[in-house]
Formats: sequence, C-alpha cells, structure tokens
Amino acid sequence: MERIKPRTLSGFMELLPEKQAQMERIMETLRSTYSLYGFAPLDTPIIEASEVLLAKGGGETEKQIYRFEKGDSDLSLRFDLTVPLAKYVAINCGQLSFPFRRYQLGKVFRGERAQRGRFREFYQADIDIIGDGELDVMNEAEIPAIIYRTFTTLGLTKFKIRVNNRKVLNGFFEILELSDRAADIMHTIDKLDKIGTEKCRALLIEGGVSENAADEIMSFIAINGTSAEKLKALEKYRNKNTTYSKIFDVGLKELGDVVRHLPEFGVPESHFEIDLTIARGLDYYTGTVYETTLTEHPEIGSVCSGGRYDNLAEYYTDKKLPGVGISIGLTRLFFVLEEQGMLSNEIITSPADVLIIPMTENKAKAIETATLFRENGIRTMLYSEQKKFKSKMNFADKIGVPFVVFIGDDEIADNFVTVKNMKNGHQFKKSEKMAMSYIKGVVTLRNNSDLILNFVKEK
Amino acid sequence: MERIKPRTLSGFMELLPEKQAQMERIMETLRSTYSLYGFAPLDTPIIEASEVLLAKGGGETEKQIYRFEKGDSDLSLRFDLTVPLAKYVAINCGQLSFPFRRYQLGKVFRGERAQRGRFREFYQADIDIIGDGELDVMNEAEIPAIIYRTFTTLGLTKFKIRVNNRKVLNGFFEILELSDRAADIMHTIDKLDKIGTEKCRALLIEGGVSENAADEIMSFIAINGTSAEKLKALEKYRNKNTTYSKIFDVGLKELGDVVRHLPEFGVPESHFEIDLTIARGLDYYTGTVYETTLTEHPEIGSVCSGGRYDNLAEYYTDKKLPGVGISIGLTRLFFVLEEQGMLSNEIITSPADVLIIPMTENKAKAIETATLFRENGIRTMLYSEQKKFKSKMNFADKIGVPFVVFIGDDEIADNFVTVKNMKNGHQFKKSEKMAMSYIKGVVTLRNNSDLILNFVKEK
Repeated sequence: MERIKPRTLSGFMELLPEKQAQMERIMETLRSTYSLYGFAPLDTPIIEASEVLLAKGGGETEKQIYRFEKGDSDLSLRFDLTVPLAKYVAINCGQLSFPFRRYQLGKVFRGERAQRGRFREFYQADIDIIGDGELDVMNEAEIPAIIYRTFTTLGLTKFKIRVNNRKVLNGFFEILELSDRAADIMHTIDKLDKIGTEKCRALLIEGGVSENAADEIMSFIAINGTSAEKLKALEKYRNKNTTYSKIFDVGLKELGDVVRHLPEFGVPESHFEIDLTIARGLDYYTGTVYETTLTEHPEIGSVCSGGRYDNLAEYYTDKKLPGVGISIGLTRLFFVLEEQGMLSNEIITSPADVLIIPMTENKAKAIETATLFRENGIRTMLYSEQKKFKSKMNFADKIGVPFVVFIGDDEIADNFVTVKNMKNGHQFKKSEKMAMSYIKGVVTLRNNSDLILNFVKEK
Repeated sequence: MERIKPRTLSGFMELLPEKQAQMERIMETLRSTYSLYGFAPLDTPIIEASEVLLAKGGGETEKQIYRFEKGDSDLSLRFDLTVPLAKYVAINCGQLSFPFRRYQLGKVFRGERAQRGRFREFYQADIDIIGDGELDVMNEAEIPAIIYRTFTTLGLTKFKIRVNNRKVLNGFFEILELSDRAADIMHTIDKLDKIGTEKCRALLIEGGVSENAADEIMSFIAINGTSAEKLKALEKYRNKNTTYSKIFDVGLKELGDVVRHLPEFGVPESHFEIDLTIARGLDYYTGTVYETTLTEHPEIGSVCSGGRYDNLAEYYTDKKLPGVGISIGLTRLFFVLEEQGMLSNEIITSPADVLIIPMTENKAKAIETATLFRENGIRTMLYSEQKKFKSKMNFADKIGVPFVVFIGDDEIADNFVTVKNMKNGHQFKKSEKMAMSYIKGVVTLRNNSDLILNFVKEK
C-alpha cells in the first residue's frame, strides 16, 4: 500500500499526553473559576456565515480568516469569541436574562504567517458580562477579582493586574484639546514600554503635538505611587473638561470605584496597579481597561486583557448592549509557560493513578480490584498484555503512574494487594481498602499542588 | 448603521444557557468516566492537510468534507476523530507508551444535507486503546464496563450493550463457503431490525445465496437465550472451519472471554446481550463489535458503537497498530434526550448557586460575602444593577438560581444574611457560615441527582 506521510500543520498545537494533561488542568481551572462568579458556559459553532462573522468588515483580521464556499454558502471559521457572542446575544436577547454572564473556552482560527509561538488555531478563554441598555460600574470592579483568582488558583504569584480607564484618557485629551488625535496619541503611548520616554515624547511631537502638550502628556503618564496616590494626583484634572460630558470626572469616579472595592473583592494592592499608559489598541473600549503581566516575564506582554465597551452587537441590532470582558490567549500562554519551564511536574500527568498488573493467569481478582478502585474514584489502568515482567514495569515507568498494584496467587489466597509507590520505590502489602485510602491521599495531595511554578525548575 | 441579520447556520447546534449547562454535565461525566479507566485526554487540530486526512480516500465521506484552500495549502476540517488519532499515533509512536489509551471529545464536521436532528458540526466522544503489534482480548472485554459506567453515571438505567464478534461471523460464512459474499450478507443482516426475518431471507436468496444457506444464516442469527445459552448454541459450529485459521473457533473463544469477565468488570447480565446480527457496516472491524441501544427507544439506533480493528494507521505507517474503540455521537444523543424530555431539571442549570442582592447603598458587606462564598466553592453572582426590587427578583426567577441572599442595613448591623430558598419560597436569617453550609448541602444534593431520566417528565 502506498503510504502518506502523516503530519500536523505548522501553527497548530498538538500535545503529547503529559503536556495535554497540564493543558486540561488549566482549562478545568478556568472553567471552575469563571463558574464561581456566575458565568454560564457557552458553546458556539466554529463555522459561521461569512456575512454574519464579517459584519464589521475590513481590517487586518479579514485577510487572516479561513473563508471558503460549501455548496452555495459563503462560510468562515470564527477568528475570536466576541463576534459569535454578539451574534448569540442579538439572536437570543429575548430569552436571555441580563446582565448576561458567559464564559467560553474555544478554538479560534487566524491564518497568520506561522512562526514560533504563533498559532493559527488557538484557544481563547473569554468572559463577558453584557447589560441590557446599561451595566453598573461594579461589574468592572469585579473583573480584577476574577483575574486574581484565576491566576492564583493556577499557582502564579508574580503577576500584576494593570488597570486604566478610557474615559480618564479621553477626558485628559479633551482638556488638552487633542481629542481628534487621541487615537494616534494612545497608539504612541502604547509603545512606551518598548521605546522609552524620550522616544515617546519625540514621536508625539513628530505627530503634531505641541511641546507643551507633549510634556503634559508625559507628566500625566508618569504619575507615580500607590493606587491612592495616583487617584489623588489625577484630581488636578478634575473639573477641567469644558464640555457638558465631564468625561474625565466620570472616568476618575469609575477608576476610584474600581480601586475602592478591591479589598472587598479579595484583590491585594500588591497585585494591582493603575497604569495610565494602557489604552488597548481597539477603539472599542469606553471605560475600564485591563492588562495582566507576569512581573518576571514582561517580555511576554499581557496574558489577560480586556475592558468595558458600550455596544457589543451594533452590527446586528439597534439594541444597546454594553459589556465588560476579558480574554486569555490560552494556547500562547501554555506555550510560554512550557517554554519557560514554569509547569510543575508534581501534578499527576499520567493517565492513571494506579496500574494494576495481574501476576497470574487467573485475572478475576485483578479485574475485581480494578472495578472496586474505579468505583471509589481512583483512575485505574489494568495491564492486560502478555509481556515479560520487565516490560510491564517499563510501561509503568514510562507513563509515570504514581502506583503499581500487583495481584498474584499469594494476593488472591490471602486477600491483600501489593502496592508499589513508583516515586520512592517502596513496596508493601495492604488490604484493598487500606491501599485505596493510601493511594487517594497521595494522589489528592499531589493534585492539590500548584500547576504553575513561580521559579524556573531545574532540568 | 446598516445592520446584518444575525443567524446561526442550520445544522449547527447552539444552545441556550440552561441547555448548555446540561450538555456540559454530560461532557464532564464522559471525561471523568473515561479517566477512571486510564484514558488520556487528547486534543488534535480541527484543520488538517487534506492529503493526510483523506489518505484513505473515496467514499461517501469525501463529498461531505469541508475542504478549502488557504494560500498554497489544501486543507480540510476533520470529519471524525479516528483519522486524527491514526495520524497522531503514526507521528508520535516513538514517544507514546503502548497500549495507548486516549479519549477525545471534539467537534467534527460533515456537510450533510441538513435535516431535523442531523448536524453538520457535532461532538464525538471517542475512546480507543491502541496496541503496538498486538493487543490482548482483555481490552475488548473491558469496553462494556466503560459503556455501562458511562450511561449509569448519566442516570440511564434502560439500555443494553449488544456485542458480537466479527471472527464468529466471518468463520460462520467460511463454513458456509460464502466468505466472498460475507460483506453483502452482513449488510443485509444489518437491516434485519428494519425489514424483518422474511424479507431478510428473501433478500439473501435474491443476492445469490442458496435456500439452504439462507436458512442456515437465519437460524444462526436467530440463536436465542442468555449469553451462556447463546455461547453454547454456537458450539455446534466449532471445528468446522476447513482452513488453518480456525477463525470461528478463535472468535468464539474471544466472545466467551468477553462474556466471562463481565461480572468482574461490574456489568450485570441484564444490560448485556450477545447479538449475532450486529456486523457494523465498516470492513474495518475484525473482532468484538459493540452497539448500545436505549431499550425504550430502539428507534434512536445505537448511541455508542465501535469494535476491535487490526490496523489503525495503515495509510501512514507499516507499523501494525491494532486497537479497540467506541464512539458516542454526543450532539445527536443530546438532541434526542432533549427531544424525548429525558433531561432532568433537578440538576442546577442556573449559572450560579446564589444570587447576592445588596439592599443598601453600602455594598462593601455584600461584596465581602460574595468573596467569602466563592472562596468556599459556592458559585455566587453579585447583582449590581440599579433596579427596582421587583426587577431584581424577576432576574433571580428567570435564571433559576436556587438561593437569593439579601444584604441590607439590618444584616450589616447585626452581622447575618437573609437567605431565600427560591424553590419553596422559605426565607430565613443565618450567619454567613451557617448559610454557606446550608446552601452547599442543597446544591450538592441536587447536583448529585441523575441528569438523564428514565421516564418522560411531565411538561
């Protein structure tokens, strides 16, 4: 038979079992954390009508989209989870209850040029809270709590949730009479971390901002100190908006509300920062914006970002649907954590907690023990192949199973099992009941340990 | 702004939150059950190179595939989870440990003509055990245990696992000297349930089978009784194979092995049946084959099918990779259960267990209580909108939340919370700690109930 060389496309992540187990752990953690905050799981199709998916149209994204025809239909693969959410809410708004909180973990597709660490198929993990007409700022205040719990549950300690408010920025630019250039200026400010203060100021002036205004901008974004100190420093811009909207003052109040409720939401000041340089590229955001950085890996950029927006579904409905949401690029995050050696091996990544090896032709007792273990929630693999003992133990080693249970003629005659702890090599005889309770204890302990390490493990 | 009418493509399932919660419950049950048997989770790309995915080529499937070009690449969406598994094992066989047990829950795509209950995008839930060169029959004996636990964990009691062995069938046809027509005959037998005995016999004769042989076939598939009785009746064909392979005898031994170990694997005879009419359309299978039917809904057909095969990846490698696997068509199963009214409402489908409603301007205590509840694993939604009390309670009703907790000035002053059980309307004051323990008890009880009902619920 002529054979085809099997391969997986480049830019598509496909993990070996141990790595997949770690990825699953992250996904389970996200699901359960989001659930704690009252978010409902949502699942939308991978394929949508192109007309619907590209309602917003244009831009960089459109070129990257996987778009094709099938029969008479013009179809596209989703490139994010926000557009499908907008579609879903627009279709179902009569049946949903608002505020509608949903999370979605799903694959999205972008045909970017493949390069190391860039994926064409990748998981996003999104949460959004959608209001019907209005949405209280308290929802924006709750988001840092969700980010904080998500990352601490995964084991991360060294991260910072950085927050800004677009109204504060927009109000500030209005005061400077630079509103029409706000987008460009924000775009320049966004590069601050990469290019530094001097270059940033020069770019602003090059872009047509007066020297005075550029200095004002640089001093604004240099505001320093604790959250309380920053809020206080921002007071000097209060009441300076000439327009009726008083947009700066509104933003400052929102930012204050977000900061004020942090302790009640369980977020320590150590993991939070007002960062006036954050603008988030999109025009989309209108209130609080969020970024999350790993403090020892700033080069990774934000691992969890989002913000408040005013119109989720304006391309589909004239209903006003404001919302706030954040997104984690899960596949990229996993790739980075793995590459940095930050994933713990303490969590059990073996497909089973116990491998039962029958040591005699009569397998009845081995099978019954496997059945009993499974009934008691122990992940149990039964080894059934006719191999030499050494091959069986090699298999146990290779899958990294924490325990092997041997069941031979002695065990059957005297009604016990022989347990081998594969980590320390200890081997002992126990009743089935005692064996189960011992195994469960060790397994629970290991699985309760953190997945993400805050130090680089020794290789 | 010109608006696009939002829509979801026909043949693509998209559920409202309560239904999605039930679907998630099924998926969680499958994941945890498969894990109990030592299967590792696997995730493969949705998109594969067409050349790789269609290595086997031809047939009905090819027409249904979503295939398209992107840049220079000829791409296809996966149409099952078996071909990606074959590819994965062929690529990674040097790094995998055999027998390799994996489960995969994932979406697959087939551009079939859309009709009610038929989906173009649907979940399959597959498990497979792959051997390197050989695979003991004990693995085939274990499969009914997995099917049994999966469905009973979901709450189903009225189902039957039907098993046959392709070697028994093939051996039988060899005895009749009808091997070259075996495929056609099996195809005819496969229709027995639909067309009945008479028509089946007539079709066999029409297809060129002698009357004698047709009678022999009809008497073979009519073998009746318990598994033990059927095995005994099959003894009369033993030693009749003229060829060296003695294929019937091998199959009969395998079938006997599978039946013999059932009690040890915890499968009651009541839920198991040898069914000599099962052939499973594909040429692919070579040993035990499985089907699972809901005894009160035979019209649904098999909800979990599979079997033993000899060559998983022959299109990619000359390595012999025998295996055994089963598959559940999850989206269709969910659709049918839902349509039959078989999904329980007792399981909590609300996105939260508790809705906290602040009854005063000072929200600090309400937020702190939400944080405390979440730290204790209670899914808690905080209601933050400025609405009338009636709207808030309407919201609670609409999302079906089991408990509402009110926190107003009295609660703050005297350090208690007011809990309302939304199911029975009872309202009472408790300390936070007592409230949590009460809520957890009720929530756990409800979530431990069965998802699938064995009776049709009253509407």
